Amino acid sequence: MRTSIKDIARATGFSITTVSLVLNNKDSKISAETSASIRAAAKQMHYRPNQLAVSLVKRQSKTIGLIVPDISNGYFSGLAKGIEFACRKYGRMVFLCNTNDFHERNVEYINRLAEMGVEGIIDIIAQNTTLEEGVAEDGLMNDLGIPHILVDRVPDAPGCVGIQCDHVLGGYLATRHLIDLGHRRIAFVTGPLLLGDARRRFLGYKKALAESGIPLDDSLIYQGNYTRECGIAAVDYWSSREYSAVFASNDESAFGVCQQLQAQGKSVPGDVSVVGYDDAVYAGMLGVPLTTVRQPIQEMGEEAARQLTQSIETRIPLNQPVLFQPRLIVRASTARRKEP
Amino acid sequence: MRTSIKDIARATGFSITTVSLVLNNKDSKISAETSASIRAAAKQMHYRPNQLAVSLVKRQSKTIGLIVPDISNGYFSGLAKGIEFACRKYGRMVFLCNTNDFHERNVEYINRLAEMGVEGIIDIIAQNTTLEEGVAEDGLMNDLGIPHILVDRVPDAPGCVGIQCDHVLGGYLATRHLIDLGHRRIAFVTGPLLLGDARRRFLGYKKALAESGIPLDDSLIYQGNYTRECGIAAVDYWSSREYSAVFASNDESAFGVCQQLQAQGKSVPGDVSVVGYDDAVYAGMLGVPLTTVRQPIQEMGEEAARQLTQSIETRIPLNQPVLFQPRLIVRASTARRKEP
Repeated sequence: MRTSIKDIARATGFSITTVSLVLNNKDSKISAETSASIRAAAKQMHYRPNQLAVSLVKRQSKTIGLIVPDISNGYFSGLAKGIEFACRKYGRMVFLCNTNDFHERNVEYINRLAEMGVEGIIDIIAQNTTLEEGVAEDGLMNDLGIPHILVDRVPDAPGCVGIQCDHVLGGYLATRHLIDLGHRRIAFVTGPLLLGDARRRFLGYKKALAESGIPLDDSLIYQGNYTRECGIAAVDYWSSREYSAVFASNDESAFGVCQQLQAQGKSVPGDVSVVGYDDAVYAGMLGVPLTTVRQPIQEMGEEAARQLTQSIETRIPLNQPVLFQPRLIVRASTARRKEP
Repeated sequence: MRTSIKDIARATGFSITTVSLVLNNKDSKISAETSASIRAAAKQMHYRPNQLAVSLVKRQSKTIGLIVPDISNGYFSGLAKGIEFACRKYGRMVFLCNTNDFHERNVEYINRLAEMGVEGIIDIIAQNTTLEEGVAEDGLMNDLGIPHILVDRVPDAPGCVGIQCDHVLGGYLATRHLIDLGHRRIAFVTGPLLLGDARRRFLGYKKALAESGIPLDDSLIYQGNYTRECGIAAVDYWSSREYSAVFASNDESAFGVCQQLQAQGKSVPGDVSVVGYDDAVYAGMLGVPLTTVRQPIQEMGEEAARQLTQSIETRIPLNQPVLFQPRLIVRASTARRKEP
């Protein structure tokens, strides 16, 4: 069992009050000898102060909650690493909550974290969250009086702000790169359009096309959901269409695109150039290393922890979006368009 | 600010005692009408019971600690997912502690978790941990009276048990597969030999060779450390040696081996067959999909949480090793040896 102050009093023969004064560093009126022997006993008996009691008294639990859709996904585990790293620096422990991308579980965990007395929450909204649900989720944390930071997925609604990568810029960079290589028939695999981050990549795609006077062709847009399967399905869907390049909204769907193109005897990038998004751990390891858009996820995680710490200390919520700049990483999956 | 019982008393006009009785379900002597109005106010004001206070009284914090070397590594994030999933079922929250594979940080986190009053710890030892340090780390948790489970990396010392994959079997399966394909000159990239799991893969390799009467050739053993770089260095190290197959102790080093073989104009598996270990997310996505040994990591994570829960409830520590069976996953990187 855990060593208590009582145990140390019993072992040393001093009173509970004396032991408590010494171990709480309030021993100015106690003899150095007594202090030393109590401290020695505490050390030997592996006494640790009870943070729960301290938390109750000070109303500071020194904990935060981190709600992620899927910790086994490299994107979220990279964020988690940055968050944990920074929280350690700020002296706070992190509760890991995994939702499997179900909105109801975010709500369940927010309530549970409130019971646990966390000082703040870093929340990543689930993929199946509607705009109304996302706003309500943010509102629940406000109602509970818990400082919080939304990361990566932020509802497109007034008052909802968070830390994100500038996905309009990301979508623009990917598409612009293909246009610069001479491509004009550029197909696009979207993410799940319920999510603002997916819609913003789409906006960046449209912006780059418009800027170059390339008309938007709806038949080249495939509504995906960030999976390998949707990349495969997109290539099948376009089988009778003409295109020389694909921009897929994440690396996993880009991998599906490459696989299916190759299965149909087309070469990447000889016949079709492909750009992904995320710079997942495997992007550079694929048969044809993938050109992609890198998000600085660990830095974003650290910034989320920093902003949350500030909100906890000042009681002022984050009130404007924090945007990180994505970067194009050019590898072997994109090339100049072949002359027709 | 968080809603307290006092706030609800103020808002409803009832006494703190009455509100407390109702919200703690001890309201048998209170009128239904009063109960209902207090409950309605609690709901509207987003009152959540204070788990910290409950924890102090019941001496059950309903929390556990999870110490991992690197949460952004797919192996550990897969384990974490299984652990979080099972802990949720058992009603416990998980503190995520990331050590970047530094032993001192494990020790620091164990002490901190003790202060947080966790009911148990799932500990993965850091890569730089010596046998003595590993034993001491396990001993520290015993001294602190905290039930704990070692996962994946378990010191080879009496009294140290944990949950692991049977890496002797894993190493054997990988090597046996190559022998069955006609290979006899099988090079081996080890993991960091401070770690028992790396030594056990080596044992499995030796066992398969011995069983087939193939003498161990030290010049074909390269001491690696689970990185891509060591796979590349191993191929350079063997440049004047003759071999037709490589077993690398994890997928990342296997990827380095494949990269460097191809850089030297050799084909995988035409010239050299390669087997990895782990079945990382990218193993099947590589240019030549990798034959590898799969560990059932999510199940291992769930089992760790189950065993820890049992230890917490019974106060009986895990007293014998739990071994999971690895499985050979055959993909395209291995083939029958070419006739010389």
